[in-house]
Amino acid sequence: MTSGEFDLISRYFAPLASPGKPAYGLTDDAAVLTPPAGCDLIFTKDALVAGVHFFADDPADKIARKALRVNLSDLAAMGAVPLGYLLALALPRGMKDIEPWISEFCRGLGQDQAEFGWSLFGGDTVSTDGPLMISVTAIGSVVRGQALRRSGARAGDDIYVSGTLGDAALGLKRLMGEIDTADEAGKALENRYYLPQPRLALGHNLAGIATAVIDISDGLAGDIRHLCDLSGLGAEIKAELIPLSAGAGKLLASFPAYKSLIWTGGDDYELLFTAGRPERQNIARLMQEFGFPVTRIGHMTVQKAIMIADKDGINLLGNSQGFRHF
Amino acid sequence: MTSGEFDLISRYFAPLASPGKPAYGLTDDAAVLTPPAGCDLIFTKDALVAGVHFFADDPADKIARKALRVNLSDLAAMGAVPLGYLLALALPRGMKDIEPWISEFCRGLGQDQAEFGWSLFGGDTVSTDGPLMISVTAIGSVVRGQALRRSGARAGDDIYVSGTLGDAALGLKRLMGEIDTADEAGKALENRYYLPQPRLALGHNLAGIATAVIDISDGLAGDIRHLCDLSGLGAEIKAELIPLSAGAGKLLASFPAYKSLIWTGGDDYELLFTAGRPERQNIARLMQEFGFPVTRIGHMTVQKAIMIADKDGINLLGNSQGFRHF
Repeated sequence: MTSGEFDLISRYFAPLASPGKPAYGLTDDAAVLTPPAGCDLIFTKDALVAGVHFFADDPADKIARKALRVNLSDLAAMGAVPLGYLLALALPRGMKDIEPWISEFCRGLGQDQAEFGWSLFGGDTVSTDGPLMISVTAIGSVVRGQALRRSGARAGDDIYVSGTLGDAALGLKRLMGEIDTADEAGKALENRYYLPQPRLALGHNLAGIATAVIDISDGLAGDIRHLCDLSGLGAEIKAELIPLSAGAGKLLASFPAYKSLIWTGGDDYELLFTAGRPERQNIARLMQEFGFPVTRIGHMTVQKAIMIADKDGINLLGNSQGFRHF
Repeated sequence: MTSGEFDLISRYFAPLASPGKPAYGLTDDAAVLTPPAGCDLIFTKDALVAGVHFFADDPADKIARKALRVNLSDLAAMGAVPLGYLLALALPRGMKDIEPWISEFCRGLGQDQAEFGWSLFGGDTVSTDGPLMISVTAIGSVVRGQALRRSGARAGDDIYVSGTLGDAALGLKRLMGEIDTADEAGKALENRYYLPQPRLALGHNLAGIATAVIDISDGLAGDIRHLCDLSGLGAEIKAELIPLSAGAGKLLASFPAYKSLIWTGGDDYELLFTAGRPERQNIARLMQEFGFPVTRIGHMTVQKAIMIADKDGINLLGNSQGFRHF
């Protein structure tokens, strides 16, 4: 550890960590956590690279918050409550204005620590000759034995999705200048790209209701495939039922060529889950409680094929993807 | 996740993970661990960058094992037993022979999983325009309330160090061609650089004996300072007592200019700890049991200064470092 690194840690990162257990103000070799009684612990780890997963000149606080939220979304998909995270940060050698950047980055971390009720447990800061890179390890807890899985769907189960899909992918197209809409709705789509909304409360309440859960990070078409593979089933989804935001609907009316982004775009970080028909009332109740849509978009099938059908029953995924047998 | 990434994971990484809990064969959103009863969990995370922490053309299996071992050393310093780890791997875009590299890398991981009795819990594989980068998050357990800390040393406590110091730093000089010794002893020093020996069994047995523990990653001089800072004390160490390997002793006889590497070189990953005088017998017993030296090299002082004294009582750290008051 260089003295410069030590200063950064004590000035910016230590205030994000508890002075006592588990983080000891980041002064010890490691963090010490007494697990909540009667709980299993959930672990997930993501890596984000500038130029690949975010733009190097994105606002530092938004980079920080997105890095946390993509991991929080994995916790949500397991039904977990967040406890804390470890952070590895590789800073480009000779990076300009490093201290204001770190300060903004840590402000973003602090904001989402407060919002999601967790804290920094530890980590590492290093230099690299390459682009800035962030790795977050998230730790959460669930009541013992109640972690949600990707693998429990049954034929005939309803398929649900939270929130609206495609916003982040369309927002990214706007950020990249491919789509030119100057209005407020367009700005909202960009915000969905920067700040996904991990569905922690929903995930936490799906124990005993959902049979299989995944968070949509790679797009509906890819992630329903993971659910199907692990459950040994197929899926039939009606495209017209996929929930769109007002902004996405308006934008697609002007740019219909981008329609497939709704199921292939990724970066949604919504929950995709299955549940038996008797759970419809419970799910309607949850939707009321949480104030965002939870939409039934299709059902699981015995036939191991994935269909996203348009109004005429044509599979929008085409034969290659839709009827891959596995 | 690209299909290429998916293939790499299923072919090379999934066999390193348990098919059921906690890793579910790396197929789910996250790992699910039921914590061992009556235990606290220990978390630590390190990042290693090619060209900074290892050479890009180092053997891939050794890179993997060192990445695990530097984290295992942190667990050892807390007195923990390793349970599992998460791994983030950033691979340079267009890296040649990526599959043989991954295969060797995973062979190294597997070797040290077997050696230290732990397994892969999860992680992430991404591409980067920069150098190869590895981040490991290690998870261990200790009997509740028995985690070792850096902060409990008392004035008059003995200072001990495990193994021998300086080997890795001298081995690195040899690897870099600065020191030219063609013999077996020189090769052994290089091996100490590549493959540190985390002192897990020792750490695990220091509960109730040691008052403060740290692992030496930045060199004895730097890491005793952390112990002193956190315990509000100083330290007096006798240079002639610092344990050297036969190879290091022989090499320093020919290259005396490198002597200070013994306390400044880093990469030792030995345990540095303090204990009261009544524990001397217990520590001698542990040394017998584990078959490597555990050497008393000095004692903690009320005066908040750090001295590494030569035979004439001169502080080898000089005034600037040795008598910094904090």
